[in-house]
Amino acid sequence: MTDILYDAKKIITAALKDAMPGAAVVDALHNISFGKGRLVVVAAGKAAWEMAKAANDSLGRRIDSGIVITKYGHSHGAIANLRICEAGHPVPDENSYKATEQALELVKNLGENDEVLFLLSGGGSALFEKPAIPGEETEEITKQLLASGADIVEMNTIRKRLSLVKGGRFALACRPAQVYTVVLSDIIGDPLDMIASGPAYPDASTCEQALMIKEKYGLKMSAQAEELLKTETPKKLDNVTTFVTGSVKQLCSTAERVCKRLGYETAFLTASLSCEARDAGAFLGSIAADNQNRKSIAYIAGGETVVHLKGKGKGGRNQEIALSAARYIENCKNTCIFSVGSDGTDGPTDAAGGIVTEKTAAVLKEKNINIPEVLENNDAYNALKAADGLIITGPTGTNVNDLSVVLIKRP
Amino acid sequence: MTDILYDAKKIITAALKDAMPGAAVVDALHNISFGKGRLVVVAAGKAAWEMAKAANDSLGRRIDSGIVITKYGHSHGAIANLRICEAGHPVPDENSYKATEQALELVKNLGENDEVLFLLSGGGSALFEKPAIPGEETEEITKQLLASGADIVEMNTIRKRLSLVKGGRFALACRPAQVYTVVLSDIIGDPLDMIASGPAYPDASTCEQALMIKEKYGLKMSAQAEELLKTETPKKLDNVTTFVTGSVKQLCSTAERVCKRLGYETAFLTASLSCEARDAGAFLGSIAADNQNRKSIAYIAGGETVVHLKGKGKGGRNQEIALSAARYIENCKNTCIFSVGSDGTDGPTDAAGGIVTEKTAAVLKEKNINIPEVLENNDAYNALKAADGLIITGPTGTNVNDLSVVLIKRP
Repeated sequence: MTDILYDAKKIITAALKDAMPGAAVVDALHNISFGKGRLVVVAAGKAAWEMAKAANDSLGRRIDSGIVITKYGHSHGAIANLRICEAGHPVPDENSYKATEQALELVKNLGENDEVLFLLSGGGSALFEKPAIPGEETEEITKQLLASGADIVEMNTIRKRLSLVKGGRFALACRPAQVYTVVLSDIIGDPLDMIASGPAYPDASTCEQALMIKEKYGLKMSAQAEELLKTETPKKLDNVTTFVTGSVKQLCSTAERVCKRLGYETAFLTASLSCEARDAGAFLGSIAADNQNRKSIAYIAGGETVVHLKGKGKGGRNQEIALSAARYIENCKNTCIFSVGSDGTDGPTDAAGGIVTEKTAAVLKEKNINIPEVLENNDAYNALKAADGLIITGPTGTNVNDLSVVLIKRP
Repeated sequence: MTDILYDAKKIITAALKDAMPGAAVVDALHNISFGKGRLVVVAAGKAAWEMAKAANDSLGRRIDSGIVITKYGHSHGAIANLRICEAGHPVPDENSYKATEQALELVKNLGENDEVLFLLSGGGSALFEKPAIPGEETEEITKQLLASGADIVEMNTIRKRLSLVKGGRFALACRPAQVYTVVLSDIIGDPLDMIASGPAYPDASTCEQALMIKEKYGLKMSAQAEELLKTETPKKLDNVTTFVTGSVKQLCSTAERVCKRLGYETAFLTASLSCEARDAGAFLGSIAADNQNRKSIAYIAGGETVVHLKGKGKGGRNQEIALSAARYIENCKNTCIFSVGSDGTDGPTDAAGGIVTEKTAAVLKEKNINIPEVLENNDAYNALKAADGLIITGPTGTNVNDLSVVLIKRP
């Protein structure tokens, strides 16, 4: 492995390690000093088990009771006296509702000296839900919204009002206890009212908007549901403190720190990359190609690009970024571009992402592999495999989006 | 006009001014000291008239003779004793052939103390051409190549061999005179063997490749044409000095210089941007959004993005970059993103490009204009018009691709 690939490996390893749910929780707990009352832990989301495990390892007997609600197959054994529940995702099921009801039960009678540690991760929208109307009607209204072409903001404006926990209502249920929310963010820009539909975050939408949306799409619903649309969600929550900890920003800042330690000047570009993957790759490749006469420099970008599937090949957005970038750095020296998904599974593949150098394009040419054709066929996996350009980490147990880095190394 | 828009205007004005063919030629002439022999000027391309005019204004009577070959409607009167010719573009016609023959005539009997000033700009491939076989057969072979799916490199490998001027052959015809080539580059990366098919630049392709391409696509041609495929193009030219003057790199470096003068830290990203316009805009917008807590900084990118037309609206690649970027900077402060085509005509519109600030998205929302929908319909022109975001310069008379800049201004 050449020097620069060794650097890349160090950056990837460190960034993923810092983005693990456990590390993120430990990091956040440094900022919280709990009082002397009861402490209830509620963990919900795909990383709930890992987050609760880290909290329990740190706080131990300080925790009085708690519940962990995660996706089927995502728990890994008992954690002290916490109740472990598995439930449906991405579609909530009876187990989601039952477990969430138990969580509400746990926080119901807390006093003003008591505290709730609320650990939230991606997938929480489905896993942490207790409808205020029968589940079937919620599902029926969701179907109408989907068929009507309503956007995600409109959908959430309606659904938050039909839930006993979304849109800040879980925090209301905890009152008068204090709630410390630790969020492992899987949404670009960390919109706290969107992550898991914001159970402990003030809701910006209004009843007026909800009724306008019902009108606009001619939604059919029971009188009970319509009444709920008229019930306001909390606009202010004075019992909540929120810590966003694992997030793509942290992925970027760890990468930046390691790059500096390895002797690279760093240029942070963005933590909210959201364009088409192959175009992001082209942009990064062009940046690499046109900054060759400098000292060692690393360009860092985080986010979650998209792939509009056209072909029938195998790949993922990070693999497409890397492969697309390879075309632009053929005439470079000691240059490497990688993109990696923090969850370790990029698209439906066993790779976490892709890594290319100035030699990759030539290797592929020799094997008669044409990069534009591969991209048209969305088959980056097989091309990168042929060029020894797959990053394999296995599933990591976290998901805080993707990290893309350009490395240019000079003696 | 706010401060930051005033800065943007200054940057655009200065960059376009430096990219004018005349300014570019004057700049290049500073590096050439002509001898005492005869001096012949040959100017070819869409900017040939402006380049020749600037050369004549500088060199005056020092010029013995010359010819200007430009597109119909692109000459603006007599220039001393230079012959002015207009011809077909993008498809060469009899006037292209006749004028090019006259150019060959002018350089035929030059001695080793004589010199040729060869002024080349975009469009030269069609305007500066003299086929070595009847024009009809050249056209017939071009048609076969197009129908076969041959790529641009394969096309040029064949066509250079069927021409008396392309692939370095014009420089051969000038021997033993010295040739000073001044190139106004309209191709990203300034590939000198591609610009106008490289009449005065060594050709990298070989006869062997040419014959393989003929074989590969089963091209039909006369015995005379086949014989030409076996005639090698020059691999080395010791009578040529080349100056790339106006180019997108210059556009970027002028922008960088002006930004520094206006108090911005500068970050040069690339001069070879080539991805989808709206994705380049998204990337630039994300960079702006995530670098708000800094001092004044300007991010500079040059290149030529592409637009894959889906809708029936009005717009151009620079307008799409700006409009797409507007979505990402809504929550920014004192931030502006613009993209401008150096030719002053972006797509089939009267605008040179687009400019947006953190206020643009809100202005459009108020007018019920939805940016993603506008982009789907390729209608950036009308949306930018509604937000006072069109850059209008009129046709500039040059074409050295596009300039995109992010400005973040802090007190």
